[in-house]
Amino acid sequence: MRHFISLNQLTNDEVYTCLETAEAYRNRTKRCNQNHFVANLFFEPSTRTKMSFTVAEKRLGMNVLDFQSATSSMTKGETLYDTAKTFEAIGADLLVIRHQSDDWFKELKEKITIPIINAGAGKAEHPTQCMLDLLTIYQEYGTIENLKVVIVGDIKHSRVAKSNAEALKRLGAEVFFSAAPTFKDDSLEFPYLSMDEAVEICDVLMLLRIQHERHENQTETTNYLEEYGLTKQREKRMKKESIILHPAPVNRGVEIDSGLVECKRSRIFKQMENGVYVRMAIITQLLQGWGKSNEYALEKC
Amino acid sequence: MRHFISLNQLTNDEVYTCLETAEAYRNRTKRCNQNHFVANLFFEPSTRTKMSFTVAEKRLGMNVLDFQSATSSMTKGETLYDTAKTFEAIGADLLVIRHQSDDWFKELKEKITIPIINAGAGKAEHPTQCMLDLLTIYQEYGTIENLKVVIVGDIKHSRVAKSNAEALKRLGAEVFFSAAPTFKDDSLEFPYLSMDEAVEICDVLMLLRIQHERHENQTETTNYLEEYGLTKQREKRMKKESIILHPAPVNRGVEIDSGLVECKRSRIFKQMENGVYVRMAIITQLLQGWGKSNEYALEKC
Amino acid sequence: MRHFISLNQLTNDEVYTCLETAEAYRNRTKRCNQNHFVANLFFEPSTRTKMSFTVAEKRLGMNVLDFQSATSSMTKGETLYDTAKTFEAIGADLLVIRHQSDDWFKELKEKITIPIINAGAGKAEHPTQCMLDLLTIYQEYGTIENLKVVIVGDIKHSRVAKSNAEALKRLGAEVFFSAAPTFKDDSLEFPYLSMDEAVEICDVLMLLRIQHERHENQTETTNYLEEYGLTKQREKRMKKESIILHPAPVNRGVEIDSGLVECKRSRIFKQMENGVYVRMAIITQLLQGWGKSNEYALEKC
Repeated sequence: MRHFISLNQLTNDEVYTCLETAEAYRNRTKRCNQNHFVANLFFEPSTRTKMSFTVAEKRLGMNVLDFQSATSSMTKGETLYDTAKTFEAIGADLLVIRHQSDDWFKELKEKITIPIINAGAGKAEHPTQCMLDLLTIYQEYGTIENLKVVIVGDIKHSRVAKSNAEALKRLGAEVFFSAAPTFKDDSLEFPYLSMDEAVEICDVLMLLRIQHERHENQTETTNYLEEYGLTKQREKRMKKESIILHPAPVNRGVEIDSGLVECKRSRIFKQMENGVYVRMAIITQLLQGWGKSNEYALEKC
Repeated sequence: MRHFISLNQLTNDEVYTCLETAEAYRNRTKRCNQNHFVANLFFEPSTRTKMSFTVAEKRLGMNVLDFQSATSSMTKGETLYDTAKTFEAIGADLLVIRHQSDDWFKELKEKITIPIINAGAGKAEHPTQCMLDLLTIYQEYGTIENLKVVIVGDIKHSRVAKSNAEALKRLGAEVFFSAAPTFKDDSLEFPYLSMDEAVEICDVLMLLRIQHERHENQTETTNYLEEYGLTKQREKRMKKESIILHPAPVNRGVEIDSGLVECKRSRIFKQMENGVYVRMAIITQLLQGWGKSNEYALEKC
Repeated sequence: MRHFISLNQLTNDEVYTCLETAEAYRNRTKRCNQNHFVANLFFEPSTRTKMSFTVAEKRLGMNVLDFQSATSSMTKGETLYDTAKTFEAIGADLLVIRHQSDDWFKELKEKITIPIINAGAGKAEHPTQCMLDLLTIYQEYGTIENLKVVIVGDIKHSRVAKSNAEALKRLGAEVFFSAAPTFKDDSLEFPYLSMDEAVEICDVLMLLRIQHERHENQTETTNYLEEYGLTKQREKRMKKESIILHPAPVNRGVEIDSGLVECKRSRIFKQMENGVYVRMAIITQLLQGWGKSNEYALEKC
């Protein structure tokens, strides 16, 4: 793996290797001291993803360069390519990039000679989020195969929906969508269920965030919860073992009743915890692929 | 101590233990390597407090997560609670929070399962500032008891005045206020002195900053120094050993003549230095209370 | 050397010592673990300089304090002097400052009792950029003496032009300028060449950035490349061994044809790499001058 841009690059075996590496980090059976420099280039607001990468990087013993685009030379018109090339020149060993463009990585992946991790590409992809969702499901069921997963909400504006649906299908899950009419995306070939059907059949209810910041007009959400969201009544009709995921930040009272965010079957904060381990695993595998983890001592304990 | 929210939580003995731990850090007789993750969540501008916490944390060997609210998911409407919960989920061992609300910690202290330090709560409290003021006085006089302390200036909008006055009184000091009529706060029961009386009787003159950023209208300060501030003439009438404190940033030429900021009896920059040691002590005591400092090696030298 | 404010402070011998220390860091024959605290105070946008200092500092094992002026007490009116003094008080061992004023260091260098490095002073000076340019030339030719160097572009608004021209001349180079009429600066006594003459005679072509952000009116750049910039045609007429420098960020297609930014004779990204080593050398020499590097272990390997 040269760069970690999309889950489509990985074979099923590679996905499982990544999940198992993440579990090893979670169980503290694996530890490493990379001493590399990593630059986090975030061009969109982020708490979870950026801080999760930062914790993962620091746990791996890396030196973290925190790029602030608002006070950078990008205010003088510097391009993403020149910015990335600059970090390569000053000694970064790894770039983690989130950018509002759907394909920001096209030019970079050909011309940058250090590994790049996609931390979010416009509306297109967010593969580390996808991987942490997979880990959370894998921890619960030990497999992805034959699970019924319903992805619910703003399918159209979500970068999580597309990549998750494809990865889950490839790994053997049965994938459904559920969405308000304006949030449906007919370019993706997955069957749609009503929310009332969804809660009854799902093993995994994967809620999406309404991406107000990606909408051209403010979306009316007055009756959204009752019509399309996860109410307390609907939650009661879910199967005993089935779980709730949400990438967060949650619009409390819109996608989900606020009282359910930390309910027993919610894995919302577990997902965040898993994000750190998954990112540790991705970074480790990527640096190993580049022969970079041999340069420095790798401790196991 | 579960969280460090207010000085009212601490007994007098606990206050003194904290001061002595701070002195031990200052004298380099105590050192420790925590290796924990701490997240600094500052929702109001800060140089001193934020950087002082950062230095304290790094000196303790902690990994510091620097949260930038302007480029975080709070721009997508995420609440303080969900933000704090996120940092807990991704592995923070400690949260340091400054927020404009007077009681932001109410919901958090019940539901967050890692320690929290209050680095400023609206107009209400700023207990680490209070503790560093106490340390600065303690270094000078070896005690707080029976000292005459006059707190001067914008009592009404200051979060330092209230908590300092109460803590000082509890520790045995005689506390007075001095303020321009619009800056008086009649809800607090301390006697008011004129500035001319204040300088003559005080052992400690504790100047406050005029909090322009908390006023609804711009305060007229043309004659403020002459009428209510510390002029060079007034400074000359202070007792030989008495000292000047100010939490900074100083409005030079308003609360105090610019030439006095670094005068012999000024402890303004000493206070900043002490802030680091006090915060090291508070962090250490808090983590010990949670049984967290046993997880990692604690070196003494 | 008390502070590193200007190249004029250094003798030629000191310049060469600095270049050789930088080369030692580049060749990994020198390494050190300072464990000091450094505060980076940048009041103007920067990617390269700020991140380059950060990498240099972290490679030296320093603890880096990243000051964000937009969320600091400078929003409450605190001065640069009081901000610097604050960092001194909370334990910084070194200040790295970039500020829009041409002489921000005047007050500071008298009154601050820790070393200061000038990371850019308005339109006046940018001595670490100058030093990395010298290193890049020195690597190429083994000397500065008798080289023909043409500095091209926005001489008038450049802080690089003035200090570079003087340093190069002092070290024995023949220095020329080339500029559009509005960019000439008649206060500096160096001969002007046309761009067509420049490319043919130079050993080093030192392009400058058009500093749009320092111009009062937007500069018209439609025909700029053809008339005053480095086109592909002009590049072909350069001597076989001669090299191209640019401090970046590059205005692609204005100062230089975009296709030449990474051409064989371009040292633009090499300069950025060298920036790290030069800054490591400057920091080391400065701390040694203050007797600061003896306090902690200095490892060589």
